[in-house]
Amino acid sequence: MEFSSKLLEKAVNEMSQLPGVGKRTALRLVLHMLRQPKEQTLALAEALQTMRNEIKFCKSCHNISDNELCEICSSNNRNEEIVCVVEDIRDVMAIESTSSYKGLYHVLGGKISPMDGIGPHDLNIETLVNKVKEGKVKELIFALSSTMEGDTTNFYIYKQIQEYNIETSTIARGISVGDELEYADEITLGRSIVNRIPFESSLKS
Amino acid sequence: MEFSSKLLEKAVNEMSQLPGVGKRTALRLVLHMLRQPKEQTLALAEALQTMRNEIKFCKSCHNISDNELCEICSSNNRNEEIVCVVEDIRDVMAIESTSSYKGLYHVLGGKISPMDGIGPHDLNIETLVNKVKEGKVKELIFALSSTMEGDTTNFYIYKQIQEYNIETSTIARGISVGDELEYADEITLGRSIVNRIPFESSLKS
Repeated sequence: MEFSSKLLEKAVNEMSQLPGVGKRTALRLVLHMLRQPKEQTLALAEALQTMRNEIKFCKSCHNISDNELCEICSSNNRNEEIVCVVEDIRDVMAIESTSSYKGLYHVLGGKISPMDGIGPHDLNIETLVNKVKEGKVKELIFALSSTMEGDTTNFYIYKQIQEYNIETSTIARGISVGDELEYADEITLGRSIVNRIPFESSLKS
Repeated sequence: MEFSSKLLEKAVNEMSQLPGVGKRTALRLVLHMLRQPKEQTLALAEALQTMRNEIKFCKSCHNISDNELCEICSSNNRNEEIVCVVEDIRDVMAIESTSSYKGLYHVLGGKISPMDGIGPHDLNIETLVNKVKEGKVKELIFALSSTMEGDTTNFYIYKQIQEYNIETSTIARGISVGDELEYADEITLGRSIVNRIPFESSLKS
């Protein structure tokens, strides 16, 4: 791709570093910016700069936060003895939007994935183990996605905290609400039968 | 969507102003930036700022440029008597990459489209008509896309320059190289038969 302007070329090259954004998409986005009022592009650039310079990660759960401790960790209405282990902050947002969980979180920042060069020491596992060691945690809920990497990560953490004798659980796997049985995959359907729950308790939620 | 950080929320909101980028995609992109080295985000922000502040449009053809006159308009190897009328700078890049055209361009900046509130006065039509008026142009090539809006724009410009008796042409419509006849639409196939060219001239290019 030949550009008529070095400034344009630089902007397109930087934009195309983003995941899922190729050179053509980057050019489309940058040309759109040039058609919009100048203030809009400058506001975007400033928002990105401020965010990258000033954003903090909660020192307890590693969630993104504007303060040392995030709103969830510093809240008084949370059960501090239950910790839900998630992959990244999008999972925190997803669980929070259900309003069914009142414990704390622990954001790992990824999953153990040797293929991508991510080992246990690249994740926030040590601080989680320390929390358990200090006796603050009564139950750990594993809420990683059920892939090979997710299961590996769960098991790695489980091995590290096994000796402290706390409760561990994992989110229920089963047929999604509204789904047709005939289209479900065998593993999910199988697990949903093995791990069936009393009919009365399904009426409550 | 509830965010745990105002800075994050601001960045996601600004990113989601871009066309084709929803809130979820914006969040994915911003979280990716947070995982990458700080310098990368700051470089992107700076490239956007510099571009928006310093980029110029060629005063002759309205192509994006780092100088008053773009490289094409200021080149000595171009036939200044032929002007190719295109919608935006991506079309200039596309035609340039074919290496088959050695004339100049004129970038309209869009097409006449009443549905989107774009009239002739929102486009760079006046400067084009002036060029023709001054007698600098011998041939005008219309290279807009063949949609209702493209045809309207072509016709509007044609009416404005008709009195100056210059040559006007439009890029050839026909079956794409490599395409199968049976899958071509009727209009394209029909035009390709009506506007057939001598076999010898097809051997040259």
